[in-house]
Amino acid sequence: MKILLSHGDGGLLTHDLIDGVFREAFNDAALQEQNDAAVMPVQAGYMAITTDSFVIHPLEFPGGDIGKLAVAGTVNDLAVSGAVPAYMSVGFILEEGLDIALLKKITASLAATAREAGVRIVAGDTKVVEKGKCDGMYINTTGIGFIERPERLGYNRIQPGDRIIINGGIAEHGVAVLGERAGITFDPPLPSDCRPLNRLIVPLLEQFPSIRFMRDPTRGGVATTLKEIAVSAGVRMVLDEELLPIQPHVRGALELLGMDPLYLANEGKVLMIVAEEEAAGVVDHMRKHPDYRLAAVIGKVEAGHGEVILQTALGGARELQMLSGTPLPRIC
Amino acid sequence: MKILLSHGDGGLLTHDLIDGVFREAFNDAALQEQNDAAVMPVQAGYMAITTDSFVIHPLEFPGGDIGKLAVAGTVNDLAVSGAVPAYMSVGFILEEGLDIALLKKITASLAATAREAGVRIVAGDTKVVEKGKCDGMYINTTGIGFIERPERLGYNRIQPGDRIIINGGIAEHGVAVLGERAGITFDPPLPSDCRPLNRLIVPLLEQFPSIRFMRDPTRGGVATTLKEIAVSAGVRMVLDEELLPIQPHVRGALELLGMDPLYLANEGKVLMIVAEEEAAGVVDHMRKHPDYRLAAVIGKVEAGHGEVILQTALGGARELQMLSGTPLPRIC
Repeated sequence: MKILLSHGDGGLLTHDLIDGVFREAFNDAALQEQNDAAVMPVQAGYMAITTDSFVIHPLEFPGGDIGKLAVAGTVNDLAVSGAVPAYMSVGFILEEGLDIALLKKITASLAATAREAGVRIVAGDTKVVEKGKCDGMYINTTGIGFIERPERLGYNRIQPGDRIIINGGIAEHGVAVLGERAGITFDPPLPSDCRPLNRLIVPLLEQFPSIRFMRDPTRGGVATTLKEIAVSAGVRMVLDEELLPIQPHVRGALELLGMDPLYLANEGKVLMIVAEEEAAGVVDHMRKHPDYRLAAVIGKVEAGHGEVILQTALGGARELQMLSGTPLPRIC
Repeated sequence: MKILLSHGDGGLLTHDLIDGVFREAFNDAALQEQNDAAVMPVQAGYMAITTDSFVIHPLEFPGGDIGKLAVAGTVNDLAVSGAVPAYMSVGFILEEGLDIALLKKITASLAATAREAGVRIVAGDTKVVEKGKCDGMYINTTGIGFIERPERLGYNRIQPGDRIIINGGIAEHGVAVLGERAGITFDPPLPSDCRPLNRLIVPLLEQFPSIRFMRDPTRGGVATTLKEIAVSAGVRMVLDEELLPIQPHVRGALELLGMDPLYLANEGKVLMIVAEEEAAGVVDHMRKHPDYRLAAVIGKVEAGHGEVILQTALGGARELQMLSGTPLPRIC
């Protein structure tokens, strides 16, 4: 069974698609009512809103697929903002001729990741475009979370002396996708780190008051993300190349692909800026989880004006800029 | 200047695009902070969430463009749910080679429509795909509104004897887009009805307690939307063909295009189910606005089991089903 243009015309086949694929997979009371908008209770306070479209190619890759990624990416944007993710909308753009079995598989993966993250999918939309006007499918997810203290995290809290922490090996998503695209099978397989991080981040925020700022280093990688933070906070960040966690097999693949790990996307990593006195505690907490055994302090914050410096293993120093000039299209 | 793949890599050119196109057009404090999520205050109560992706072809059409449509479509889904639209996210998928001047024009139209509707654009995302992997641009908007009394509207409030009201001529969006696609220039021009309806709907809801249910008849048209309502409410709906407002020039274009107006999309229309005693008052209120002079009662609700019946001008009766078999792709 293939997707037809009529699946997107709002008529009978659109209803069949909703009933046959989406309703069962997402199984949320808010969707069952089939209204134009989902109605949800809210407490007084603050909410966080984030949106992301996912155009990754290929749709499936080692360690994940566009459905898992579409949940993880949006949940992580909420979590690094200090929010507890609550609700999500999902908008599909499907290409005429797409295999409905693949759509079902990706929808099931999306739904399973949302359940794992404890996020409810409350609103959806499906459009179909002609063959050749999209690449299988694109997915938008928009997430809503709730924040108790919005002043808890901010660029203005970052201070010289703070430490920079990451929860594990870098470049794993980028290597998985670029390897898959290049048709390279790694042995052992190198899966993407794609996963929702809210169950890691929310307890850390409760336990460690000196977590000052967080960001997930996706497109553009660790270097671009740290540069954005350094510029916005008006500080200098110094990274120690020898402290950067990279899984040994990933390091080998990076040499094969000729890529700089500092500019490759991550989809299950968080950069935290933490006061020096709590940095070891945060890393210890992370390392207790089997997925985050490589968590490490990778650098520190100094007084400055937006510079990011990499101290190399050979004792040199290199200033890092944002990703520029080598496009890595459709990595997420 | 054209869109390059590097505009979507999360690096320097992505920042240039955000600074040069989106930040000024949208000009919202929540976007200026450049965080992964916007943080907004909320009151205790209920919120409505809706999402829509827009893949309309062509990107510009008489009376509107994909930017105006992307706001109107989502604002209207919130408004017909009884919500006061408040916040919106916007996700762009851009095709490599897209003219940046066109992107700026559509972004300005989107921003102007949001201001007109009183909705804040608080979160955004941009992705770029290779030439031939999209059709200029696709836009997702996700809207959040607030509802005081969620029980105010519902299928369960619809009763036999209620009247069915529409706020103006039908099929105008469908005719505008299909005409543009076919390369037909109508004289006088036939613009799409594309517009946000919250400033019409919110005061009506306050003034007329017997408004029981609303829906905007977009994809699938008036017939498909009424069929959905009739089935969900478990009633019979009887439409009077002679009462259906259709602008005379639109009627001529429909004959030329060979299309049934009951199945063509509207993007500035609302179907309201209202108690008989308030129906005339609702129509009078609508007609005071120059855009809604053709507002009319078009039919009534009877006891039944999901049927929609069209009483024709010749005295016959035809049962209407959902749109099926004639795809009208990418109408929104």
